Amino acid sequence: MRNIKLLIQYEGTRYKGWQSQEHTENTIQGRLTRVLERMTGEEIDLKGSGRTDAGVHAAGQTANFYTETKLSCEEILRYLNTYLPEDIAVLRAEEASPRFHSRLCAVRKTYVYRIWNSCVPNVFDRKYVYQVEEPLDVERMREAAEFFQGTHDFRAFCANKRMKKSTVRSLERITIEQSGPELRLSFTGNGFLHHMVRILTGTLLEVGLGKRKPQEMAAILVSLSREQAGAMAPAQGLCLLSVEYE
Amino acid sequence: MRNIKLLIQYEGTRYKGWQSQEHTENTIQGRLTRVLERMTGEEIDLKGSGRTDAGVHAAGQTANFYTETKLSCEEILRYLNTYLPEDIAVLRAEEASPRFHSRLCAVRKTYVYRIWNSCVPNVFDRKYVYQVEEPLDVERMREAAEFFQGTHDFRAFCANKRMKKSTVRSLERITIEQSGPELRLSFTGNGFLHHMVRILTGTLLEVGLGKRKPQEMAAILVSLSREQAGAMAPAQGLCLLSVEYE
Repeated sequence: MRNIKLLIQYEGTRYKGWQSQEHTENTIQGRLTRVLERMTGEEIDLKGSGRTDAGVHAAGQTANFYTETKLSCEEILRYLNTYLPEDIAVLRAEEASPRFHSRLCAVRKTYVYRIWNSCVPNVFDRKYVYQVEEPLDVERMREAAEFFQGTHDFRAFCANKRMKKSTVRSLERITIEQSGPELRLSFTGNGFLHHMVRILTGTLLEVGLGKRKPQEMAAILVSLSREQAGAMAPAQGLCLLSVEYE
Repeated sequence: MRNIKLLIQYEGTRYKGWQSQEHTENTIQGRLTRVLERMTGEEIDLKGSGRTDAGVHAAGQTANFYTETKLSCEEILRYLNTYLPEDIAVLRAEEASPRFHSRLCAVRKTYVYRIWNSCVPNVFDRKYVYQVEEPLDVERMREAAEFFQGTHDFRAFCANKRMKKSTVRSLERITIEQSGPELRLSFTGNGFLHHMVRILTGTLLEVGLGKRKPQEMAAILVSLSREQAGAMAPAQGLCLLSVEYE
């Protein structure tokens, strides 16, 4: 059996996320699987590096699947891009070692949250940014973000209240870059809890708007309570930028 | 009467261009006029710097209108962005001199045509680029573009065969920038004929694909014949970048 690794890009706007519980729903994984099964004539189990929520985009999602097809990687790439809808593309298809697993072998992921901080809308990127009209204090947001760097129990930033597994994660780096009216919040870490990036972003936004002090972040982390953290930022500003492997 | 100058951005995909002959059609000018008339309670004659074709975008279209409204420019800006559809935005509204006319006072315009030269589709910018899968020889395209710089009779690059007015225009500068798989063709000049940028782009594409030699450009210009030039490139890759005034 060959193990094929795919690098995938999608605009999440009209999908119910990468994967969903209901088999009948419109998901990225479902769309890809349908085309792969038609291409190979086999039943395909496509494994993604992780789920992305409904409406979240990906510039570099990774997935893999086992197949006995004789098609070259080049032919697979071309077939997929011919039959996939225009809001999903495969950037690369390559042979991986039999033991490669998109989720289990991932060592690091980077998410980017794009904020359009202006009262004038962004026409061209409107589906990829979250517009905030009130001016944001970026320096205060950077100060607050520092509290999240490193290894912490992020239970306060997890949507799943009954999460029984460990909620300790390492956030290697958070950066906030400003370019004109746009803010790009980048989060790099070894793993992310459900909605974690969006709740972190929402909390940082409340700091930027002056509703919270940067110093409060330490207390929120320690509280382990979702109620202490800020509101969840909307899905459309979020993009899974890259997944790294050893 | 006040004369208000607007700086406008739009995604042209779902419109029949800036302006159309038929009053009932869905145009950018029509959408703006409707909101301006509701805002002022007056009949508004919105003048654009020039028409853009159906499907063509604008990052910096300029238009002006006369009004007796008491609203400040700030209020006009906010009203427009609140009631315009999300694929049209007004970046600036300002007081202009009574003699300012968007079309007649324009001294220079820049259009950009974006080509995505890859067999892998561009998911995020798919509505703003024209994908060309076969590799393009950019150096040859640059050589060909040189022939168009300066003042020429561009009749061969004009869609209107019965054009009775002068078809002489000055193309101050054409540049072709490459960044990864993307080519950006920029055209700066004092005026453009109907479909001129798209026919120039289509002809340069044929040079890039090896179907024509750069040297042929001189003969096409001299022929003054539309049949000698290349096919018209599709609207979606084109964007009116800016309009300059004295």
